[in-house]
Amino acid sequence: MSELRFDPIQKRWVIIASDRGKRPLDFKEQPTFKQLSFCPLCPGHEEKTPQTIAQINDSEGNWRVRVVPNKFPALKIEGELEQHAEGIFDVINGIGAHEVVIESPNHNEQLPDMSVENVQKVLQIYRSRLIDLQRDSRLKYILIFKNYGVSAGASLEHPHSQIMATPITPRTVAGELMSAKEHYLLKQRCIFCDIIRQELKENKRVVYQDSRYVVLTPFASRFPFEMMIAPMPKRHSADFAKSTDDDLYHLAIILKDILQRLRKGLNDPGYNFLIHTAPNINANARGAHYWTTLERDFHWHIEIIPRLTKKAGFEWGTGFYINPTPPEEAAEYLKQIKI
Amino acid sequence: MSELRFDPIQKRWVIIASDRGKRPLDFKEQPTFKQLSFCPLCPGHEEKTPQTIAQINDSEGNWRVRVVPNKFPALKIEGELEQHAEGIFDVINGIGAHEVVIESPNHNEQLPDMSVENVQKVLQIYRSRLIDLQRDSRLKYILIFKNYGVSAGASLEHPHSQIMATPITPRTVAGELMSAKEHYLLKQRCIFCDIIRQELKENKRVVYQDSRYVVLTPFASRFPFEMMIAPMPKRHSADFAKSTDDDLYHLAIILKDILQRLRKGLNDPGYNFLIHTAPNINANARGAHYWTTLERDFHWHIEIIPRLTKKAGFEWGTGFYINPTPPEEAAEYLKQIKI
Repeated sequence: MSELRFDPIQKRWVIIASDRGKRPLDFKEQPTFKQLSFCPLCPGHEEKTPQTIAQINDSEGNWRVRVVPNKFPALKIEGELEQHAEGIFDVINGIGAHEVVIESPNHNEQLPDMSVENVQKVLQIYRSRLIDLQRDSRLKYILIFKNYGVSAGASLEHPHSQIMATPITPRTVAGELMSAKEHYLLKQRCIFCDIIRQELKENKRVVYQDSRYVVLTPFASRFPFEMMIAPMPKRHSADFAKSTDDDLYHLAIILKDILQRLRKGLNDPGYNFLIHTAPNINANARGAHYWTTLERDFHWHIEIIPRLTKKAGFEWGTGFYINPTPPEEAAEYLKQIKI
Repeated sequence: MSELRFDPIQKRWVIIASDRGKRPLDFKEQPTFKQLSFCPLCPGHEEKTPQTIAQINDSEGNWRVRVVPNKFPALKIEGELEQHAEGIFDVINGIGAHEVVIESPNHNEQLPDMSVENVQKVLQIYRSRLIDLQRDSRLKYILIFKNYGVSAGASLEHPHSQIMATPITPRTVAGELMSAKEHYLLKQRCIFCDIIRQELKENKRVVYQDSRYVVLTPFASRFPFEMMIAPMPKRHSADFAKSTDDDLYHLAIILKDILQRLRKGLNDPGYNFLIHTAPNINANARGAHYWTTLERDFHWHIEIIPRLTKKAGFEWGTGFYINPTPPEEAAEYLKQIKI
């Protein structure tokens, strides 16, 4: 079983996933998509994946979106949560969940190719998995993310995203939660709402907006063409799981639009997107956890990170990023792409 | 001029380097080494680089190691430090230094190919640049790092490393400094010394040791075959710049050894290495900066990160890494490589 380990200097947890089967010699090849004789995620090969956890069917009764456990999970749902010290170090066992969302039955149908209704179904299954996993009080945080392209870390071509539920609140999310809580305690306002209001007023980094959502290139973007999708301040919400079907329909329009722009304007780059939502209230309420979230002191959002630059020594060493494209230029460029 | 921008949520500074010339269309090609008709870092082409800042000659009076300003610097040394707010955001102008260390006159002579004496010269020039840049009280932190291979972000083949001096203490370094200071205030001991003593006793993650230095695969390694080189507790030191010539000779033996192992055992992977040393006391003492460093509350070290895995969505989204190779196995594997 894998382990979670705490670095007492960085105050950062790491999963040591020793049973994922990577051994020294596995690294001798450069990663490329495996040339499989068949795709395990395509219809007809359902027996090649672990058992279905959730699915949404199309009008003809065939699956349209399907969620299965990851065949090589970094964290596993079975077992008791165990924590202990090893001298100066801390260890938690690898309890959690690691699931794969198969976004389409069609091998080559990526999100920007789908109808808005089918993108909405992907978002709906994200929501239903989030609600289900939040029932497990061992799981402190649930992250939904997508790696598109080899450069972004995807190992299969078939359109898919992933869900990872962890027994600790990860460092970056914890940092966001603490910043937002601190701001709220001082000012009784959401820091994300404050930022979005300023961005809408300045209108230099707004890529897209409708009555429900806004898409920004963040002021301090770490990466070229990095984007954030968030609910408008008037529709402030901490928890993605509380989105309505109608919300998700609007969000699907935006996500499809943005991903079409990325593909057309930047030559189909690899990208990651991630949903940052409130931590699991059922896990965190138990121990009066530091960042038990009030509805007002966090604001869910999606981060989209095109993989255009390689993160090099300076960034690794400092946590301090060099971004060669000002977000104002990125927003301008993204807006003018004809899709 | 580029700007430093502060993300009030992540509490993280970013350099917006708008004059480095990267525009949207520049990303349409995958990065590879530029096929130059000549190498600007080779002897005879000295006029193609900005003016030499420092050099060490060989016994025949030709340069053996040379430092020049980066031709496309992310930060520039000229100008006054300026800081202001933009509504909720904060801005500092891009004052700093960005230098290139040309490690050898020979285009294909990488660190593991050099004599120990020549590796020592590279370390000596690191030390002398550190001492010189520390005189500039605008520069809060000086990072020395190397990107080797395209996968690690290098854009030139010729053996070189880089120096970046920044007007803020970068986030990751600040986190380490704070952790180490907190531990010292509570326990009157260096946290790095405590960890190294435990590691030497357990002897499961020690790759190399001599009377002066130890090489470990960290307990909570983020990456496969990640290593840390640090002074032994008996030779505790916060500031790399205080290393003696004799120290650097021993360090050169180790660095050459470790890089030979990496190349032979893991098929010549790309890697980054970084020296984490104390922040600039001359900059930080002025304002009674939070982490004004006492000699006892930090411990310089070198991080070596082979670029074997792609950092994917989960890691970006959470700051929470998945490492498929336990550091105990990595240490075992590295030790048994015959060089």
